[in-house]
Amino acid sequence: MQQHNFSPGPAILPPSVFQALAAGIVNYHDSGLSIAEISHRSPAFLEVIEEATRLVRELYQVPSHWEILWLPGGASSQLSTAPMNLVNPDDTIAIVNTGYWSEKAYDAASAYCHVHRTDPKRLDIPEEAKYLHVVSNETIDGIQWHTFPDVKIPLVADMTSDFLSRPIPFEKFALIFASAQKNFGISGITCVLVNPTYIPDSPNKIPAPKIFQYKTHMAEQSLYHTLPTVPVYSSLLMLRWIKAHGGVENMYALAKQKAAMIYQEIDANPNFTGLAPIEKRSIANACFYGNSPEIETQFLTFAEKRGIYGIKGFPTIGGFRASMYTGMPIESVQYLVETMQQFTAQAL
Amino acid sequence: MQQHNFSPGPAILPPSVFQALAAGIVNYHDSGLSIAEISHRSPAFLEVIEEATRLVRELYQVPSHWEILWLPGGASSQLSTAPMNLVNPDDTIAIVNTGYWSEKAYDAASAYCHVHRTDPKRLDIPEEAKYLHVVSNETIDGIQWHTFPDVKIPLVADMTSDFLSRPIPFEKFALIFASAQKNFGISGITCVLVNPTYIPDSPNKIPAPKIFQYKTHMAEQSLYHTLPTVPVYSSLLMLRWIKAHGGVENMYALAKQKAAMIYQEIDANPNFTGLAPIEKRSIANACFYGNSPEIETQFLTFAEKRGIYGIKGFPTIGGFRASMYTGMPIESVQYLVETMQQFTAQAL
Repeated sequence: MQQHNFSPGPAILPPSVFQALAAGIVNYHDSGLSIAEISHRSPAFLEVIEEATRLVRELYQVPSHWEILWLPGGASSQLSTAPMNLVNPDDTIAIVNTGYWSEKAYDAASAYCHVHRTDPKRLDIPEEAKYLHVVSNETIDGIQWHTFPDVKIPLVADMTSDFLSRPIPFEKFALIFASAQKNFGISGITCVLVNPTYIPDSPNKIPAPKIFQYKTHMAEQSLYHTLPTVPVYSSLLMLRWIKAHGGVENMYALAKQKAAMIYQEIDANPNFTGLAPIEKRSIANACFYGNSPEIETQFLTFAEKRGIYGIKGFPTIGGFRASMYTGMPIESVQYLVETMQQFTAQAL
Repeated sequence: MQQHNFSPGPAILPPSVFQALAAGIVNYHDSGLSIAEISHRSPAFLEVIEEATRLVRELYQVPSHWEILWLPGGASSQLSTAPMNLVNPDDTIAIVNTGYWSEKAYDAASAYCHVHRTDPKRLDIPEEAKYLHVVSNETIDGIQWHTFPDVKIPLVADMTSDFLSRPIPFEKFALIFASAQKNFGISGITCVLVNPTYIPDSPNKIPAPKIFQYKTHMAEQSLYHTLPTVPVYSSLLMLRWIKAHGGVENMYALAKQKAAMIYQEIDANPNFTGLAPIEKRSIANACFYGNSPEIETQFLTFAEKRGIYGIKGFPTIGGFRASMYTGMPIESVQYLVETMQQFTAQAL
């Protein structure tokens, strides 16, 4: 049976991307070699990473003085390494408390420097704060900044769950990072976009280990060490796919369309209730509850029998979560909506 | 034309492993889903990581109190995070200077704690040293510890280039790490084997960020954050392959056999000279020079025309390097030997 995969990440990518990735793993461009068995410094792989970097720059019209880095692992590491790169231990940063991932950012940063927490309504920021950390989309809570806040200091954004599916006003930012496994590839690689103006010239009082310094990777075009080459290749394939499908503008339009479809059903269907306040609803992750424990159990079984995968909510939140990143076809969202409708019809 | 891939890493894996990896990326176990689009916490992926961990334990008969971790990125990160996990900034460690990767380890560790350097002959180690860092195989210099040194303190070993292709006397070690892309998978994941006895109970004076603490990952079976799932799956496939092909014992026997073949030819052929002292020669990477600049240029062209890939030496070393990790078939080594013989015959 065809699966409709609403997993929060690692997440669905288009079948053509998985097929191209698989083909490259067996025999890359008819070279007789796998993309996985060649050096990260080989001409063939240099083409991969250079094209991927160029595509990020092109798709987002990234300002020319910004650097684009590919770093191993996920965005979680950046929650620690971002402050280590941008500020000193006696500096203060601010974090807007929006949910699970801003908590994680608080924990990571406060082990290194002073952190002031604020909430999205007040946005009170101390004079001395060097930057404001925002989680552009809170995957677990289903909440999103639809417009990034206007403050006097630069923003640092964890954009793992909505990178490439929304516009970015770069003039507001010092740093943006996103791991690939939601919107532009498989897990194992993180794309870091940094305005070098915000990286101090003089070394920090407690410098980050060289391997975690952005400067190290800026100086070597992310090739300081052996990169996760297959994850980078998967990102290139997704970036090409996004370009071929209308770029960020169209990804954004599609994301809004998919979100509108699912939220309309959540609001209309007597068995379900949306989790997030309407004005904050995420276009990447729609979180909703069944209106009783029985409905939750029954709907999960009903949906899974119909080939819907990965809609269980985060353990601490419960309910359901439909993640709809760039690789999610609108037809699958339509199918989920119909499934909710049929569930309610058969229960009557 | 068939390629014989002697790349130093990312390196050759058996065709059956690449094919199984590609198949899993398109449709994992006929689930209708890619292994790349499911959660690292899904039952299907839990089976993958649990079996991979079990296989490392089984293949090496890892002592039961040791922990086996899967961490994102490469071994380079561990050069910084190992001392951060094992000692305090005012502690001293020792490093045996064997070549390029022990230099890297020195640079990384000395940014964090006191580091005493010694050479492999003297092995003078200060009383206060907490551990001795050894690079079991120096990939770039083609040098290997055939027997690990007997010292009074535990060893920490970077085994990226000979993990799973040689026995390990675990009683000598506190920590062993190896990134996958040479002997057991694609790049993006590192396997860390740690004896928890050597991890201090009380927090370090300057604790490592939580995401870089081994304890964090020990407490959550490496699932604290989103793992590079496809790299872990590639490791499982390679571990199964190693088990099916006689385990570490046979990988070790094959490695010695492959090395004997190539070194015999290097020593017999009037056009080439081995780089490493004979008694230190690596069974993983055979480094050799052509006996004149012309021979080097001509042999590279000759070999590449015959489908030999990736034998150029490291830029700072020059010459040639034939890397022969677990995935390297003996037939390819035989083919390289024949190529060297034919080169010399046609040049006469």
